[in-house]
Amino acid sequence: MSVQPFSVPVFVRMLTNLSGWLDKAAAFAEAKKVDPKVLLDSRLAPDMFPLVRQVQLATDFAKAGAGRLAGVELPKYPDVETTIEELKQRIQTTISFVTSQDAAALDAGADRDITLTIAGAPLTLKGQTYLAHLAMPNFYFHVTTAYAILRHNGVDLGKRDFVGNPAG
Amino acid sequence: MSVQPFSVPVFVRMLTNLSGWLDKAAAFAEAKKVDPKVLLDSRLAPDMFPLVRQVQLATDFAKAGAGRLAGVELPKYPDVETTIEELKQRIQTTISFVTSQDAAALDAGADRDITLTIAGAPLTLKGQTYLAHLAMPNFYFHVTTAYAILRHNGVDLGKRDFVGNPAG
Repeated sequence: MSVQPFSVPVFVRMLTNLSGWLDKAAAFAEAKKVDPKVLLDSRLAPDMFPLVRQVQLATDFAKAGAGRLAGVELPKYPDVETTIEELKQRIQTTISFVTSQDAAALDAGADRDITLTIAGAPLTLKGQTYLAHLAMPNFYFHVTTAYAILRHNGVDLGKRDFVGNPAG
Repeated sequence: MSVQPFSVPVFVRMLTNLSGWLDKAAAFAEAKKVDPKVLLDSRLAPDMFPLVRQVQLATDFAKAGAGRLAGVELPKYPDVETTIEELKQRIQTTISFVTSQDAAALDAGADRDITLTIAGAPLTLKGQTYLAHLAMPNFYFHVTTAYAILRHNGVDLGKRDFVGNPAG
């Protein structure tokens, strides 16, 4: 057993799917003659983040989830994207980063203490706990909320787009 | 390393959180003098499932995720809930089922072939792949969509309600 299958391949699958939803969002905006920025600024509640931020945060939790487990310094991704193409580029950058992490380093990280700052207070978790109970739920939260914003706006997506091909 | 920490404790944490969101939904409905059924029937898009079905499906994927990995027969949960209290009961039943699975049986399941029927066609996956790439994304999909429906309707929830305490 290894922690690797529960980290990098999951991030890669869902980020790849997310990139595909953004393609469908771009096609939808073009067909409806709507500025894609309307979709990027769309949110499900006034005090929830809009789509652009959901995508940024999904990549941040994938980056942190893989990078902290592997014990490497995290690259900074400035939150400057304003187009679907730029968000897709950020997703690709994130996929490259997470897939470059060494499987043995990821496995070694499962038992290492990882200290984070949450709401101003330090929190120390074993790498495995950090991955399964903090990075992964946050990652899925932002990925799923991005999907929900697009569905709520009428973009033609279905469950198969969300999950992808589990055997693939 | 064991597959157990990436299955049962994740299901239990998120199902417990989901149950807490339903408490907040009940309090919201009472304060607003709204029939809770309005929330249970609420959806983010006309062709997405309403809240009641999102909760049922979240429990189904937790049940299947743990049960198939452990190699036990899955209990049937008829989809008959019409109240928040009944949904909370279903969540508790699911938590009892997943926590009753033997850790060694779950670990043994990681390498076992699991055959499912997807869209009428058989699909065989290793237990570990089934968990990480089918059960877990579907589980998080329905849990997060339930949260999004409640947030969209104005229920007072925040990210801390979603994730819970990762050290807890």
